[in-house]
Amino acid sequence: MIELVESHASFEGTQSIYKHHSGAIDLPMRFSIYLPPQASTRRVPVLFYLAGLTCNEETFAIKAGAQRYAAEHGVALVAPDTSPRGADVPGEALTWDLGVGAGFYVDATQHPWSGRYRMYTYITRDLRETVLSSFPVLADRVGIFGHSMGGHGALVIGLRNPDLFQSISAFAPIAAPSQCPWGVKAFSGYLGEDRETWKPYDASELIGSEIAGRFKGEILIDQGLSDQFLAEQLRPEILKRNAERADRRVRLRRHAGYDHGYFFISTFMGDHIAHHARQLAGLN
Amino acid sequence: MIELVESHASFEGTQSIYKHHSGAIDLPMRFSIYLPPQASTRRVPVLFYLAGLTCNEETFAIKAGAQRYAAEHGVALVAPDTSPRGADVPGEALTWDLGVGAGFYVDATQHPWSGRYRMYTYITRDLRETVLSSFPVLADRVGIFGHSMGGHGALVIGLRNPDLFQSISAFAPIAAPSQCPWGVKAFSGYLGEDRETWKPYDASELIGSEIAGRFKGEILIDQGLSDQFLAEQLRPEILKRNAERADRRVRLRRHAGYDHGYFFISTFMGDHIAHHARQLAGLN
Repeated sequence: MIELVESHASFEGTQSIYKHHSGAIDLPMRFSIYLPPQASTRRVPVLFYLAGLTCNEETFAIKAGAQRYAAEHGVALVAPDTSPRGADVPGEALTWDLGVGAGFYVDATQHPWSGRYRMYTYITRDLRETVLSSFPVLADRVGIFGHSMGGHGALVIGLRNPDLFQSISAFAPIAAPSQCPWGVKAFSGYLGEDRETWKPYDASELIGSEIAGRFKGEILIDQGLSDQFLAEQLRPEILKRNAERADRRVRLRRHAGYDHGYFFISTFMGDHIAHHARQLAGLN
Repeated sequence: MIELVESHASFEGTQSIYKHHSGAIDLPMRFSIYLPPQASTRRVPVLFYLAGLTCNEETFAIKAGAQRYAAEHGVALVAPDTSPRGADVPGEALTWDLGVGAGFYVDATQHPWSGRYRMYTYITRDLRETVLSSFPVLADRVGIFGHSMGGHGALVIGLRNPDLFQSISAFAPIAAPSQCPWGVKAFSGYLGEDRETWKPYDASELIGSEIAGRFKGEILIDQGLSDQFLAEQLRPEILKRNAERADRRVRLRRHAGYDHGYFFISTFMGDHIAHHARQLAGLN
């Protein structure tokens, strides 16, 4: 059961926020959804957008300027929150890069996070099933993309679930989380010190895997060269190199002058929506 | 002298925030400016956008999705704050519709606001002169637009200054402030009880005036029909009726389903930027 929180007309479609219960997290979760005008008469492809650290389910809808392109291409846009809210896990609000607003799209196995911080299962099961069963979208035309921590999440979830997601892209993703401070902190906290357990959540490890080989599309990644996190936290060159070794298609575009924020994202949003629309339209 | 606060690449141009001293207000003020890529090689037209209640100099840049259109048409966009900040006027932060975030684009004459809450002179003199002298913009290709309280401000400032502003538009403006609760509260507070002093700040009064007759363009106004403030606070039908009586050109477009927020504004932003670009290009 889902509950409408708010709804606004936007580019002849509807931008809404809903609340629903997540079994994985055992708490209510919120997500935003944009339904383009085409969805009033037929089912449309749907793209899941995963946001970065400190964001919530509203950030994408407010800052990314994506509705115009979604209305042009006739695709729905779904954006979840970035962590459980109100889980009352001790210390969850102490830092901005672990806990609230920083779920990292993993299923935590470690105390005190396990049982609540299960964003991987939330996205791939609860949110996906709610969206597919509640809105006029096509179950076999589903894309995933995201930014920074959410770019990591989109790459990992897309590469591990080629049957669920048919197109993938990312803005400035944390492309090799096992090799950067943000990722090491989050994975240590959520998954523990055994680095073998990190590999299924690291796009640069996954890209050469057998399951990832079943994803046949090209992955589009945009990266600003004035991004203050590029060298230490994002490291897309590791993903690109591992993709080339495994003969997987990653198109990494580097943009001089652009930084890590939504002014960068909104500039290239049109290209990403077109990328997904094209990939999803090309399926048979 | 102006001071750069932050700057971000956006649609091949630059979205920045600056701080400068306002003589009218006698405090530092902030504004955002988007310079399109064309501004790196020539002077471009410039549009001033005035925001609504509770907004600040960042709101427009973050939520309106205007940069894409500004880059297409080659126009600069300037958005000031909506009131002085840090004026320490007693009670200025008590309510959201008077004081901080609610300057109403007037020069207050009443205690305790006078001497500080002088947004009219700030916009028409300090901000305008700073922008014209500091950035590659055309002094004779200047438009003004805004939303709600800022739609009121844009109409008033545009209609009273046909030599300074050559194009005007508004989203859901407070079109007859002397006849709505928001306007009556603000004008009573800032201007006092003599309603004669309100007339120069009421677009529906001004539209038939001699000075407004010198503005030769068409004024574009967009209004959502699901706007919760339409009937009580905005009242564009009064402006439209008075414009028709005075043979002044106001194009009022009514849009079913749209409300008062930035999802409405962003939907029609492209039309407004095109309107200004067309009006300003048509000048000789």
